[in-house]
Amino acid sequence: MLTQLPTGEFEARIEAARDELSAAGHDALCLFSATSVEWLSGFHHLQTERPVCLAVTDDAVEVSVPRLEADRAESEEFPTIEQVHVYYDYPGNDGGDYPVHNGRTPEEAIAAMLDGLGVERVAADSDGAPGYWGYSGPSLAELADVEVETVDWVTEWRKEKSAIEFDLMRHSAMWGNLAHRYLAEYAEPGKHELWVAKRASLDASMSMLDALGERYESHLRGGFPAGCGFLSGENTALPHGLTVNRRLREGDVLVTGASANVGGYKSELERTMFMGEPTGTQRNRFEIMLESQSIALEKSGPGVPCADVDQAVHDYLHEQGVLENAQHHTGHNLGMEAHEREFIDRGSDEVMQPGHAYSIEPGIYFPDDAGYRHSDTILITEDGTEQITFYPRDLESNIIHW
Amino acid sequence: MLTQLPTGEFEARIEAARDELSAAGHDALCLFSATSVEWLSGFHHLQTERPVCLAVTDDAVEVSVPRLEADRAESEEFPTIEQVHVYYDYPGNDGGDYPVHNGRTPEEAIAAMLDGLGVERVAADSDGAPGYWGYSGPSLAELADVEVETVDWVTEWRKEKSAIEFDLMRHSAMWGNLAHRYLAEYAEPGKHELWVAKRASLDASMSMLDALGERYESHLRGGFPAGCGFLSGENTALPHGLTVNRRLREGDVLVTGASANVGGYKSELERTMFMGEPTGTQRNRFEIMLESQSIALEKSGPGVPCADVDQAVHDYLHEQGVLENAQHHTGHNLGMEAHEREFIDRGSDEVMQPGHAYSIEPGIYFPDDAGYRHSDTILITEDGTEQITFYPRDLESNIIHW
Repeated sequence: MLTQLPTGEFEARIEAARDELSAAGHDALCLFSATSVEWLSGFHHLQTERPVCLAVTDDAVEVSVPRLEADRAESEEFPTIEQVHVYYDYPGNDGGDYPVHNGRTPEEAIAAMLDGLGVERVAADSDGAPGYWGYSGPSLAELADVEVETVDWVTEWRKEKSAIEFDLMRHSAMWGNLAHRYLAEYAEPGKHELWVAKRASLDASMSMLDALGERYESHLRGGFPAGCGFLSGENTALPHGLTVNRRLREGDVLVTGASANVGGYKSELERTMFMGEPTGTQRNRFEIMLESQSIALEKSGPGVPCADVDQAVHDYLHEQGVLENAQHHTGHNLGMEAHEREFIDRGSDEVMQPGHAYSIEPGIYFPDDAGYRHSDTILITEDGTEQITFYPRDLESNIIHW
Repeated sequence: MLTQLPTGEFEARIEAARDELSAAGHDALCLFSATSVEWLSGFHHLQTERPVCLAVTDDAVEVSVPRLEADRAESEEFPTIEQVHVYYDYPGNDGGDYPVHNGRTPEEAIAAMLDGLGVERVAADSDGAPGYWGYSGPSLAELADVEVETVDWVTEWRKEKSAIEFDLMRHSAMWGNLAHRYLAEYAEPGKHELWVAKRASLDASMSMLDALGERYESHLRGGFPAGCGFLSGENTALPHGLTVNRRLREGDVLVTGASANVGGYKSELERTMFMGEPTGTQRNRFEIMLESQSIALEKSGPGVPCADVDQAVHDYLHEQGVLENAQHHTGHNLGMEAHEREFIDRGSDEVMQPGHAYSIEPGIYFPDDAGYRHSDTILITEDGTEQITFYPRDLESNIIHW
């Protein structure tokens, strides 16, 4: 049972990047996004104001990092990284009174790396480090003597997952399911929504850590390995509502979410639940939401345009007279990030392909009352789809008793 | 006792932005960063692949948002927002079979907003929406018929906090202190580091929510209102180490962190702690770290160059023979984000000014052994500095007994 990607996956990605570089007539691919660096090389780090630049050429994989990431970048944990160029910090010291530290600025380290690699034509995910946490600096073309074309190759490549990435996402769905089960167990009138969500997250995370033992491969800096949360009451009427100071009441609608991080990969499970018996109106709205999700789940598959899935949901919601209660499209790709390209949207040109992973989550929202949304994660396979989140979807299973 | 910024603060910021626009000869300031939009207007939202664009002109404040943020943007909660332009979703529907939804794409909504405002010369935080969570789209100059200059005005303005922002940060430091106290209480050999950190975070958060009651103003989507975490054992030798699967042992060094979110503002508290009596070597290294922090705390103040503070720390660490164990500069501004411009770094041109808020956190790291770092948050005042984090810094107070 794998709990992280093996080195061979990264080596294959690097080879594919080299093919693309060759085809596009570039000498190097430079990446500044932490997610992109991790996807291509396996080296993961916390993105801060300190620039990190991965450079892949036809025969080299090198990275420029601040001193505080140097030990990790140079470790055996990341065998794809062949050479590490270190600068001390950002904005960078003023020449170095003490030779124990490299006197280079981040930009000088990156320029020296590219100069050493002898590259002239660079494809890059951004033209210089992004303005994260207050960073400001020159473009890549300015800091090094290179021609730069900005490309979003990695974002595109990430859309298609491997068999192992699918496995990590299935694994994530299982631990997310546990967090969600605890959430349902702990919820009762009078309990604070934060308490319920965080106790469920903690207990699921401890179960995950104790079950995996030494096999647990952390990609976390803070947060829960397995976690859940929810909105309750009127707050559910906002798709992106806030976690507020509120205790549960009988009659509340809940819109939940649960996931887990397995080797850097996520899944997405969301459920509409009821604190006790729902009213007739609530039942009716739940069933419309559920049917709209069923339509999208059934419609999805290899060769199906994303737009057609979203349109089918819209057609049904229109027919039911609740289209104006929809506030967003049907879903999105996911894996390393909560949302990834492409989107199940009527304006999308994408066709679902084997290897894609999507959330299926149409919702309907009634202001000052409640919202209704389930989300499940599906994998597109050669033959059809595989739904990897498996918490029960039906109404009776989503009534919380205490 | 304020728990969020009053509307007047945002109005004053907007007026200042108008002065800058006028001086720079621009018609409008356009912001795409969620943090910048919140800072200027008060409207806070979850940044996703769906573009949000705030436009401020001489006489208008308008915003383009996806449908799922429309109800919040239009609510009384954000009185500075005068007009909300809505598109359905990204990438956007294909013309709209159903008139209940606006058929515009995000880019069309933004173009229509700018056209309606009659602007021609735009200052923007980025030339079009950033490529977040898979977004890809045209530059602002391409999507609207405007001239664009990218500026980082808001990032610069955020460096100087108001009296009320200082108050929110003081308040944050108090709740962070509570989380940290619980951390010290719950830590004992055999306890899992995740369990200790999350139970402390949950209990501190519940205390905060119950103490504030209806005064609690949420800026959270998930996470803890007050929280803490730590690395333990050899993992502390990495300044940005990972949260791993590990139980505490007698003799461990801990490097902790605690904060709280009060009205969108943070503070930073970090401590080096010991599970039981430290060894002589550990005591020695702790005292060097502590003295380096004391030097930085004493050196800081209005009119002091950031570089001088960092240099003073370096001089001391060099004198003590541990400069090669330093891996980062002395600190950074903070407030809305964990790190903000400017940085206490030998390469910085910044001079500390009243209104600035900095972390003071020099550290020394011994590979395969342990790291040593305290962090405190200081406010630069007219007369000197105010240290708002107040957990004891001395060695004896940071020995954990059980």
